Amino acid sequence: MKPSVIEIEIDWADCDPAGIAFYPQFFRMMNIGTQKLFEHVGLPFHVLVQRYGTSGVPMLDVQATFKSPARFGDKVLLESEVTEWRDKTFLVRHVMKLGERVIFEGREIRVWAAKDESAPNGIRAKPIPVNLKALFGA
Amino acid sequence: MKPSVIEIEIDWADCDPAGIAFYPQFFRMMNIGTQKLFEHVGLPFHVLVQRYGTSGVPMLDVQATFKSPARFGDKVLLESEVTEWRDKTFLVRHVMKLGERVIFEGREIRVWAAKDESAPNGIRAKPIPVNLKALFGA
Amino acid sequence: MKPSVIEIEIDWADCDPAGIAFYPQFFRMMNIGTQKLFEHVGLPFHVLVQRYGTSGVPMLDVQATFKSPARFGDKVLLESEVTEWRDKTFLVRHVMKLGERVIFEGREIRVWAAKDESAPNGIRAKPIPVNLKALFGA
Amino acid sequence: MKPSVIEIEIDWADCDPAGIAFYPQFFRMMNIGTQKLFEHVGLPFHVLVQRYGTSGVPMLDVQATFKSPARFGDKVLLESEVTEWRDKTFLVRHVMKLGERVIFEGREIRVWAAKDESAPNGIRAKPIPVNLKALFGA
Repeated sequence: MKPSVIEIEIDWADCDPAGIAFYPQFFRMMNIGTQKLFEHVGLPFHVLVQRYGTSGVPMLDVQATFKSPARFGDKVLLESEVTEWRDKTFLVRHVMKLGERVIFEGREIRVWAAKDESAPNGIRAKPIPVNLKALFGA
Repeated sequence: MKPSVIEIEIDWADCDPAGIAFYPQFFRMMNIGTQKLFEHVGLPFHVLVQRYGTSGVPMLDVQATFKSPARFGDKVLLESEVTEWRDKTFLVRHVMKLGERVIFEGREIRVWAAKDESAPNGIRAKPIPVNLKALFGA
Repeated sequence: MKPSVIEIEIDWADCDPAGIAFYPQFFRMMNIGTQKLFEHVGLPFHVLVQRYGTSGVPMLDVQATFKSPARFGDKVLLESEVTEWRDKTFLVRHVMKLGERVIFEGREIRVWAAKDESAPNGIRAKPIPVNLKALFGA
Repeated sequence: MKPSVIEIEIDWADCDPAGIAFYPQFFRMMNIGTQKLFEHVGLPFHVLVQRYGTSGVPMLDVQATFKSPARFGDKVLLESEVTEWRDKTFLVRHVMKLGERVIFEGREIRVWAAKDESAPNGIRAKPIPVNLKALFGA
């Protein structure tokens, strides 16, 4: 499975008084990267919710290492790929680059969740369907 | 009816590479100002929705004039008040100040709306209840 | 001069608990629309600043009327055009559409500004260069 | 050294169509938490920059685990504390709670940095001053 690659143009609103993209914005971008991964296998978010009766793929844990700054107007590439399928969770790896220069590397752990009114958060982790993993070539 | 006044500390995330608060953030702050206006008469948003069966007070039209910049760490005051009650809409005026210096002046037109599945947007404007206006001293 | 048209995909982060794009985000998008207008005549922001010794085109006054909601995943078009050149300011008109449906109409008044340490805000309005207006066909 | 504790009211703009705070916003809040930690020892950001000739405390690596959702209007507490001082970096731990319920736990690695025009990013990590650590009781 090839990584999904999207181009993002760093916006004025992404940047802070230091003149560089403020890192919380990178988490918003990673979220888009994961959405596009699912779109690329034919599962935009609303289809995902309808077909699988899931409440989506909530974030369990996220981590990022910042390597170099991005600036207003930079046209960066964000590569995203699922690197591991577990029973109820999966890992997504993201790398943002400007040319050959790495801006950041990130790693998400997302959970496959169904609505469950009796659960404390209203959702409950469930085993990831085999046919979903198959769409990603796993 | 006295204006509602809230203090806001300009955050790093509010500011852009010019080192000043990026004006779209001021609209988010005006929205908080209007929420607080309703809270101050005993109507936090969830009560408003429950008691009146409304879908809230959607924005119809907004305008702002920017007078001077605000910067990271500035502790500004936002004054908000309803300046006019019409049949189905009302006007809110906002002024942000740092000390005596005016940062911006804004004006919102909000609509009193009920859910209506047959309407194009899923909501329909309705006459504002007299007892709601009375809470604001109108 | 034809309007600039850009496509924007409404992001999850743009949307609020009502399930629709939160209107302050539209001002961020209008700002991108105005930037693209200048790019389309060969003046990306950093060139604008370098060539004209300006500090950019700060916002003086902005207004928007909201016609219908936009939702997560909507691929909307934003049309932007300069509708009037004045001595030191100019007007930009924006319309966002989803297909034929209008999401919002907006109007900006921006000022042509140069750095001026003696001015209260550190900038001072200046006459817009004739050759700049000419680039826009004015 | 006691943790810094700040109260944050979850804003409408922080929340997404799932009705909960969108996690990238938590990183913006953690950044405020770290700023307040420095303010509480007498070092607001502008003083930090002036007194130490530093360019601030850029983020090197950040991680967060999400335990339960926060919703519009929730008044949450964010506890922040430096948990480890290293030679050129330090760790900050954050916990957000609503009453006794944990919303998320986060961990930042920040670097002590000075401007260095010859460095690839324009900054260079430097040993953290002993008297700075002393302000935090280390």
